[in-house]
Formats: sequence, structure tokens, C-alpha cells
Amino acid sequence: MSRGRFITFEGTEGVGKSTQLATARQALEDAGKAVLVTREPGGTPMAEAIRELLLSPRDEAVNELTELLLMFAARAQHLHGSILPALEQGTWVLCDRFTDATYAYQGGGRGVPQEQIAMLEQLVQGEVRPDHVILLDAPVEVGMARARSRSAPDRFEREQAVFFQRIRECYLQRAEQQPSRYHVVDAGQPLDEVSRRVSGFIATLLA
Amino acid sequence: MSRGRFITFEGTEGVGKSTQLATARQALEDAGKAVLVTREPGGTPMAEAIRELLLSPRDEAVNELTELLLMFAARAQHLHGSILPALEQGTWVLCDRFTDATYAYQGGGRGVPQEQIAMLEQLVQGEVRPDHVILLDAPVEVGMARARSRSAPDRFEREQAVFFQRIRECYLQRAEQQPSRYHVVDAGQPLDEVSRRVSGFIATLLA
Repeated sequence: MSRGRFITFEGTEGVGKSTQLATARQALEDAGKAVLVTREPGGTPMAEAIRELLLSPRDEAVNELTELLLMFAARAQHLHGSILPALEQGTWVLCDRFTDATYAYQGGGRGVPQEQIAMLEQLVQGEVRPDHVILLDAPVEVGMARARSRSAPDRFEREQAVFFQRIRECYLQRAEQQPSRYHVVDAGQPLDEVSRRVSGFIATLLA
Repeated sequence: MSRGRFITFEGTEGVGKSTQLATARQALEDAGKAVLVTREPGGTPMAEAIRELLLSPRDEAVNELTELLLMFAARAQHLHGSILPALEQGTWVLCDRFTDATYAYQGGGRGVPQEQIAMLEQLVQGEVRPDHVILLDAPVEVGMARARSRSAPDRFEREQAVFFQRIRECYLQRAEQQPSRYHVVDAGQPLDEVSRRVSGFIATLLA
């Protein structure tokens, strides 16, 4: 039995990650693949508890390193307890955000040095990286309007537009630097078209 | 105004850290010092929430790296949000456990490589280290009997005697390597005698 593929979905708030995860899942299941759909931070009961700590708005100022270390604590639990065992069993793993989001949010957004993120990536992941990153890219104002319309903002969603602009730029820069791993989809297009692009990309992986 | 001193209390379960923290606090307050008594993991609302995640017994196997990263996430929040500001204001900080406990528990106890701990210590603390470490040392069986008599065991206290034996050895080895920073007190003696030794040490710091 061959190892599953590890595909992550990245992008700023409201770009349609959940919808496109569902599209990709359907395309893979139609092709007879076992699929695990999961998310970061989270993915196991303990990692979800860490997610709750990270996202809840709170009075106390959260230190940047605390946030960074909590992200990687949740990731260690998720990767070693859920993602890697699934991949080894031949399951394809579709994950809503992963370490590229840490580079974009904590690095690009908060200004945490890239070397610190790289050091923790090495500690927690060794050589493990997503096989493919689907970056859903749209102008920040488009995504923010969608995100605001659906729920009360979490601790990240309360940030200003300039924060998300830095995140978008960081994602696009990473995609440019690693074209073989990143697949950028224009998420500002009509939804049907975005889904068609994502299904098409999954089809190329299955071919 | 001079900077406060940062004094940590270390040792395995049931060696009497809480009692001796109270003894040291009294001695310092009698000398007119402002004192902050705190603990790790914990010390701020967010760090206490991380403590709760770490100590609660759970069905899910907790990855060693998750545990290590949560410890340092709580530490970043506690150190930068509470300990360092207090020291700068001239307050003496007495802390129930700190990074020496990470070397002893996660390193000595769980077998996490010392280099990984040292890397995170550098990331979170830079050059900050406790000025003095009071190591309350007693045979493991003495401490375990005391700890068991007082409350239901947490996730660490459920470990076997051999786990605590490795922790005790790690503490003693670190004390031997850093004699100027460590002050070892035989906590197997009658309580009055242990308190007398701790007060005496505080008196030398005040002299």
C-alpha cells in the first residue's frame, strides 16, 4: 500500500478554505481514496484544547513566543498522533492550515523572525513537509468581508487589514520561492470557478 | 532602586517546596523586601490555563514535544508578562519550579535530549537564568509518600518511582555542575531543620 499525500489549504480569512477542502475531499473519495480532513491548530482533543487557548479573545496580552510555541505544541500532537499515522496507512490528509500559516501569521503578521519558526519546524517536523500547498489567494478586503459576515471575530480576526495584508504578501512570497510545492488559486473568482480549479489540481495528482 | 533577585525552588514531588517558599517569603518580608511568590507551569491566567492542559490526566497519549513546547509556552508568558517586570521593579521573585525542572522532568524523566531543552531555553529566556536555585533533595520514596497523602495524583504524579529517581539524579547532577547557582538542602531532615537551612540561606543573600 502506498503512502497517502499530505495536502494543506492556506490563505487569509474568508478565502473559502472550508468549501475547497470539501471539494477536494469529494474528488478524492470519488477516486476511491481514504481521506482525513483536519485542521490546525487542532485535529486531536488535546490540540483542539490548545486551539481554544490560542483563539479565545482575552484581557492578558499574549506574548508572541507563547503564541508561536502553542502553535507548535498543537502541531506536534496533531502531526505525530494523527497525520503521520494516517499517511502511513495510505490515507490522504487534507489539512486546513499548517506550518506555512505560522510563517505567514506569526512571521509575516506578527514579525516573529523566520529563523525561530524554522528552528521549531525542524524540532517538531524533522523533514516532514506538506506534499502540496493549495494557496487560496484573494484581496484582503474580499476575504475580510466574507469572514465578518459569518461569525464573531476570534483573537486573530480582530486584527486590522494591514496585518492580513502582510500575511497575504508572505504567502505569495513563499509560493514564488517554492513553486513546485505551492499551487496558487485565485479565490477572488466566482466560487464555481475556484472549485473547478481545485478539482482540476486534484485530478492531476491522481493521474 | 536595585533589581530584585530571582530564586527558584526545585525538587521532586512532596519534598516541601510550598512550605519552604513560605519560609523564604517570610524571611524576605521581615527584611522589608517586596516579594512575588509564583509557580511554574503557571503564574498568569493564560499560563495557568496551559498548566491545566499539562497536568490533567487524559486518554490521549501526550507527545513528548507537545509537553515540552507547552512548558516553554507557559514560561514565555510568565517570564515576560510577570517575572521580569517584577524583578525590574525591585521585587524578589520566589518561583516554585522553573527551567531546571524542565531539564529534570522532560530531560531526565522523559528522555528529551538536553540540546532541545537548551534551544528552547535560549529562545524564550535569552540570557535570563534564576539567580539562585534552592534544591530540596530527599529520597524519592519519602517525597512520594507525602505527595500521595495529600491529593489525587496529577498526570506527572501518576508516574512510577523510577521516573522520579531519574529526575532526582538529574537535579543532583545539575547542582554538582553549577555549584555557585544551586543551593542543595537535605529535605529528608525534620521540617524545622529544613526551614532553618532555607532561612539561613536567605539571610546570607540579604547580608
